[in-house]
Amino acid sequence: MNRIRLTLLIILLALTGMAYAVEVPADNTLNDVVNVLKYYRAIHVMAMLLVGFGFLMVFVKMYGRTALTATYLLVSIAIPLYFFKSSHGIMGEAKGMVDNIILAEFAAASLLICAGAVLGRIKLWQYIVLGMIFVPCYALNEWILLEGGLGLIPMGTVMDTGGSIVIHAFGALFGLGAIFSLTTQKEYTTPIEADATSDRFSLLGSMVLWVFWPSFCSALVSPAEIPLTIVNVILALCGSTLATYFFTTGLRKKVAPADIANAALAGGVAIGSTCNLTTPGIAFVIGILAGALSTFGFAVLQGKLQSMIKKVDTCGVLYLHGLPGLMGGLAALFVVSGINPGSQLKGIGITIVIGLVAGLITGKVIALTGKRAIPYEDEEELITE
Amino acid sequence: MNRIRLTLLIILLALTGMAYAVEVPADNTLNDVVNVLKYYRAIHVMAMLLVGFGFLMVFVKMYGRTALTATYLLVSIAIPLYFFKSSHGIMGEAKGMVDNIILAEFAAASLLICAGAVLGRIKLWQYIVLGMIFVPCYALNEWILLEGGLGLIPMGTVMDTGGSIVIHAFGALFGLGAIFSLTTQKEYTTPIEADATSDRFSLLGSMVLWVFWPSFCSALVSPAEIPLTIVNVILALCGSTLATYFFTTGLRKKVAPADIANAALAGGVAIGSTCNLTTPGIAFVIGILAGALSTFGFAVLQGKLQSMIKKVDTCGVLYLHGLPGLMGGLAALFVVSGINPGSQLKGIGITIVIGLVAGLITGKVIALTGKRAIPYEDEEELITE
Amino acid sequence: MNRIRLTLLIILLALTGMAYAVEVPADNTLNDVVNVLKYYRAIHVMAMLLVGFGFLMVFVKMYGRTALTATYLLVSIAIPLYFFKSSHGIMGEAKGMVDNIILAEFAAASLLICAGAVLGRIKLWQYIVLGMIFVPCYALNEWILLEGGLGLIPMGTVMDTGGSIVIHAFGALFGLGAIFSLTTQKEYTTPIEADATSDRFSLLGSMVLWVFWPSFCSALVSPAEIPLTIVNVILALCGSTLATYFFTTGLRKKVAPADIANAALAGGVAIGSTCNLTTPGIAFVIGILAGALSTFGFAVLQGKLQSMIKKVDTCGVLYLHGLPGLMGGLAALFVVSGINPGSQLKGIGITIVIGLVAGLITGKVIALTGKRAIPYEDEEELITE
Repeated sequence: MNRIRLTLLIILLALTGMAYAVEVPADNTLNDVVNVLKYYRAIHVMAMLLVGFGFLMVFVKMYGRTALTATYLLVSIAIPLYFFKSSHGIMGEAKGMVDNIILAEFAAASLLICAGAVLGRIKLWQYIVLGMIFVPCYALNEWILLEGGLGLIPMGTVMDTGGSIVIHAFGALFGLGAIFSLTTQKEYTTPIEADATSDRFSLLGSMVLWVFWPSFCSALVSPAEIPLTIVNVILALCGSTLATYFFTTGLRKKVAPADIANAALAGGVAIGSTCNLTTPGIAFVIGILAGALSTFGFAVLQGKLQSMIKKVDTCGVLYLHGLPGLMGGLAALFVVSGINPGSQLKGIGITIVIGLVAGLITGKVIALTGKRAIPYEDEEELITE
Repeated sequence: MNRIRLTLLIILLALTGMAYAVEVPADNTLNDVVNVLKYYRAIHVMAMLLVGFGFLMVFVKMYGRTALTATYLLVSIAIPLYFFKSSHGIMGEAKGMVDNIILAEFAAASLLICAGAVLGRIKLWQYIVLGMIFVPCYALNEWILLEGGLGLIPMGTVMDTGGSIVIHAFGALFGLGAIFSLTTQKEYTTPIEADATSDRFSLLGSMVLWVFWPSFCSALVSPAEIPLTIVNVILALCGSTLATYFFTTGLRKKVAPADIANAALAGGVAIGSTCNLTTPGIAFVIGILAGALSTFGFAVLQGKLQSMIKKVDTCGVLYLHGLPGLMGGLAALFVVSGINPGSQLKGIGITIVIGLVAGLITGKVIALTGKRAIPYEDEEELITE
Repeated sequence: MNRIRLTLLIILLALTGMAYAVEVPADNTLNDVVNVLKYYRAIHVMAMLLVGFGFLMVFVKMYGRTALTATYLLVSIAIPLYFFKSSHGIMGEAKGMVDNIILAEFAAASLLICAGAVLGRIKLWQYIVLGMIFVPCYALNEWILLEGGLGLIPMGTVMDTGGSIVIHAFGALFGLGAIFSLTTQKEYTTPIEADATSDRFSLLGSMVLWVFWPSFCSALVSPAEIPLTIVNVILALCGSTLATYFFTTGLRKKVAPADIANAALAGGVAIGSTCNLTTPGIAFVIGILAGALSTFGFAVLQGKLQSMIKKVDTCGVLYLHGLPGLMGGLAALFVVSGINPGSQLKGIGITIVIGLVAGLITGKVIALTGKRAIPYEDEEELITE
């Protein structure tokens, strides 16, 4: 075990110990300022990764501290790995430092989504392994869709500014693939319990995601386009939040806190592909539809699918990121004028295939490296008082 | 019930489904950059609305998840409604996208303050109704005070950059009006309980509000004025925080966590009217006075008033937002040179009248639409494990 | 007691009631924009002070609300005091408003670190006294190291952009000095207990610190240098987070949540001195070494040192801020080309001497003013339900 850990550490050192190119500082120009502005969006995204995704997962009441530790590890493995890739121009052109950090954060976001599917059923060091396999797969899919990688899709013809397809759907589908080998019968029958405090922490994570989502979608958008983009994202989130309330009470009689914490965000997921390309009115409607779809997923589909495949998607990432992400990618076909429908559909198709297949294989690989004794329990790997 | 909900949803769709005007992106200019800077303040305000106000209200230990859900709904109804109004130039000139979002957030802040007064005693969908009535009333008062609406006050003669009067006092007084019809005898006698965990969450909300308050007050201030404004706000908050500690121990012997979580913020409330117009030394003194007043309100006035009128102001919004807000509005008379005292006083008077009267009527209307069975309990409307 | 409190209040009023110079607003220029950009970093640092440091200390399960109240008081005393100093050009040249606020926040950060060492063993008003003594000592040391104060070190020859030495090591050593008079036998034997909820709050504080750390280190850095600086800080944090996981499991078998919450941040502490002067690869390595050192400190040294000196460093500030801070200062000798090693070593030596001696004296002074009855308990000074 320790050998594996040390090996991982050494590989890591080797990978990142090499010198990155250092940008030469210039005078304070408008360009520098635009770069610093971009950095603030990078920080907002970082708040989403650690505090947002991290605490959203704390809803599993006995596993909260492990979930937060896992979040730390997933972010800390994904960012240097992706940064290494992008600063060396592997699978895609080399970009500026701040762009590289933002792209690395996007990879980390997708990885966190993926990890949400297997949360509580793998060991801490296996999250690191998951990250080391996930990031290259993610980078490959991103390269194909957004930079003309392998020549499959003409560059610039897939609309996905805020990552509905590349980040959300991909991460969810990868996770979905992985759960096939990462759910035992015992894990399938163990209930995932929440309580008042774990719910409140989860709502904290949810709100942090909601607040900074406009910066996520506009992270790489030019200053002039930012006002429209952030208005669209905010209205989409308002739409999904309202729809979630109406649908959770409609479908369940009472409000499920988990529906609110999750589905309220579906508007942010779904508006990603079109956030800088549509109008606020349409964004609001996309948000409402995404909130409805996501709530329906949590309230109706999740139970059905789970008992069908006897596998567990711990956080329900299929219903928050998977379906709303695909919906967002498809919505572009209807709301973006001059879109190339073939490219958009091909991009979605490729994402589904790479995500599911890579997830299936990765799940299998991780399953071979060992198994937790008790699912969803801090005590197994943490010193608890 | 469901019919009401669906009707609300449809009205909403109709209202906001209409296309908003879309700004044409230009090249990256200094102006674009100034706009993006403003957006960051908008995001800070959003953090205050959801995480700040939301978690501040979690002090009610059995009602925390419902309070957070209500926060989500209040924000998600207020922003599209106000944005619809302002982007169509209703009651006030049409403005830029980011300005509209900030003004919409201000409306949401005032609504959240108002909701704090009735927290735990209305149903979730009634928060949405509250928002739909509140926002137009808020917009009317704002229009009269700040944009010369109805010709009552010359435009630009009421000093209220950070909203001591228009946002804080108005919301608190509206809430105060509403509680007259929204407190039953049973609710009056039910204790509102907190515990160590609900207090810690409440202090989290408080700190998030404290941290981002400078951005709230400077949200619409020009870049050149921002340094002075944020210094004034920070010093006012330091002043109220220190004063709160001295007065809570002086008046109660021990420290009341609720005093700290609330009254520490009173400096931010009171500095609103003069935040860009005074000096740091005076700002610090205003903060100290506001903290003292607010703590005195929580420690002494709240009990007295409550037993006098037999009505409950759940969060004590009168003592955090009402009195310090009015104090801030009046402080402008002493510290802003060249102020028009008639306008300032008229603005305060109009706010008191519209706030209280609209609140009274709204409370009556909401009381007619139904009643919770048990106050301050998540269980009534949420699925709790 | 009350007399002391009132006296403190009056001194404070006297100190800060004096008018600060007010900057004259100019037109919106690139310079104004750069100033507003700096303000955003100031706000990020403020989030670290209150939510970050504050909640990190909530791990003491019975003392969380007092710890948060103390955080509020420490920040609210340090900022006006330091701001008063710096805006009057005492010990150092007068600077712009935003620079003054950032420098004041740095002083508050160092004070919070120091307070972490005595947390739970002094009364609330003694935190204010601590702040009033600490800030001038901090300012003196800062002045000597960074501005050529007393002519001891040539100005500009100590490398410490992000405060490894001046902020982190100084605060930790001051706290270490203070615990000698501020640990009774009873306090030494009282266990400091955490639970699942206090740990989750502590991890929240930790993550908020992690997220905004790049803004802390780049707060006073010019826009052109910011991209490199923030990349270095993020990679250093990733490095320490991964190293913490490997070392906590290696040294303790299981993961200690307190190690994760604390040592994960050691990379941020250690990269401070060189954050804008090194390359991402080296930053990552510095982070790994700092995480390893800090985890070794918590897992091995803390117990040994504690039983040797029979004194308690509540939060283990020596292991998060003290040793990694010194390491960061020394690392500059190896990674910054053209550094003046004499100055750097002299700066570190002076910090150790002033920190320890001033801490020892301050601890003695505070010990003379009274003593808590029960350590680490909210109940002693708070109204608890």
